[in-house]
Amino acid sequence: MTDDDSLEQPPAGLTIVPIGGIPEIRPGDDLAAIIADAADYVGGDVVVVTQKVVSKAENRLVEIDTTDPRGHKAIVEDESVRILRRRGDLIISQTTHGFVCANAGVDLSNVESGQAALLPVDSDRSARRIRDVIRAKRGVDVGVIVSDTFGRPWRRGVTDVAIGSAGIGPILDLRGTNDALGRELQVTEVAVVDEIAAAADLVMGKAAGVAAAIVRGIPSSWMRRGSVADEIVRDPQDDLFR
Amino acid sequence: MTDDDSLEQPPAGLTIVPIGGIPEIRPGDDLAAIIADAADYVGGDVVVVTQKVVSKAENRLVEIDTTDPRGHKAIVEDESVRILRRRGDLIISQTTHGFVCANAGVDLSNVESGQAALLPVDSDRSARRIRDVIRAKRGVDVGVIVSDTFGRPWRRGVTDVAIGSAGIGPILDLRGTNDALGRELQVTEVAVVDEIAAAADLVMGKAAGVAAAIVRGIPSSWMRRGSVADEIVRDPQDDLFR
Repeated sequence: MTDDDSLEQPPAGLTIVPIGGIPEIRPGDDLAAIIADAADYVGGDVVVVTQKVVSKAENRLVEIDTTDPRGHKAIVEDESVRILRRRGDLIISQTTHGFVCANAGVDLSNVESGQAALLPVDSDRSARRIRDVIRAKRGVDVGVIVSDTFGRPWRRGVTDVAIGSAGIGPILDLRGTNDALGRELQVTEVAVVDEIAAAADLVMGKAAGVAAAIVRGIPSSWMRRGSVADEIVRDPQDDLFR
Repeated sequence: MTDDDSLEQPPAGLTIVPIGGIPEIRPGDDLAAIIADAADYVGGDVVVVTQKVVSKAENRLVEIDTTDPRGHKAIVEDESVRILRRRGDLIISQTTHGFVCANAGVDLSNVESGQAALLPVDSDRSARRIRDVIRAKRGVDVGVIVSDTFGRPWRRGVTDVAIGSAGIGPILDLRGTNDALGRELQVTEVAVVDEIAAAADLVMGKAAGVAAAIVRGIPSSWMRRGSVADEIVRDPQDDLFR
């Protein structure tokens, strides 16, 4: 048993609402200030922001070199530290951040033709900055998640996951807590930032141009320091599929 | 462009509430009737039910053979059609259903000591039965998802996913729709049942004994026939990691 059984108490209920009114984001825009002004927040809200607008604001756009016979795959290879699989146009690789995903997270949709959007350099830092600006401008402490859309092996379809976070514990560690019958739990480390990113994606859609959402009702005991890089990215030597 | 652009419209907002008051479930209990009576539903709700109570109600409990030197791993091997990886006590395998997960989904927590809970034989069928009974008893059409907790390669922590569903399209297919800048979307097949299962897990917890939740606000255009077995389980020959 942990000393703090409150960790295992789930929320009484959650609401998830899209944040409307965020304009098309361009390089150099102060995305954190735009998000801070775009909605009314209450303490403990988790604000989920899509990678795409973060990458645009941080000017992670690159021109696709039309003279390179590899096309956009040249960019994917540059963003990868290790290629795991190739099939046709698809590359599954480990990015410089340690993520394993399709095409190194390089995105050709929702950007201007001829351009590609790279992942932010440090999405945890991007999330911290948005959190800091919301606190400074609005006077409330929120969690922030930067989300992206990843495929998975073994299961069809994509889901959103967290590539950066601030102010919310990425992993909810239930080790040492007991199940409803008093036996120690086996499954103990829940990737709550990934579950929250998935939940937020349901109200954002891929095509609708909604770039952020609020998840309200997360227990205050889940709010703490911690980063996706430290807690979610699995060390390659602990990984059975790399 | 699709003829039906309404598919790409995300919900205006979602609420997720745990369903309280479901008693400890035992083999032979009429779980569908218990869930039908446990909450007030409105048409279009998606009811997420954890695998554990479905397995118990369907009497998928087995005694662990204490004379077998393999212990509970004997059961895991029996439930597997193919072992992908072993490390220590951990087995990653493909189940008879086609899922790839740890220990073939065999569960030792939240069951009596000396017992293990196997996955339902057909979780899509289990979901259909719950949906049918809610319609018969309460007069409303809902979607139903049976959820389970899976780990992932490359990322630490577990998340809930759908192992069965009824009344909601497992995949939201956005192929042919355009992004906000008018370019055809690349990422096009969203595993919404997995995102909904993940969202519902946030209000259920692992230890709290909450076995079901309602996700309210899913667009009616997402409600249709379809099964996890048909749409989510990836054909091994299409899979790069098997």
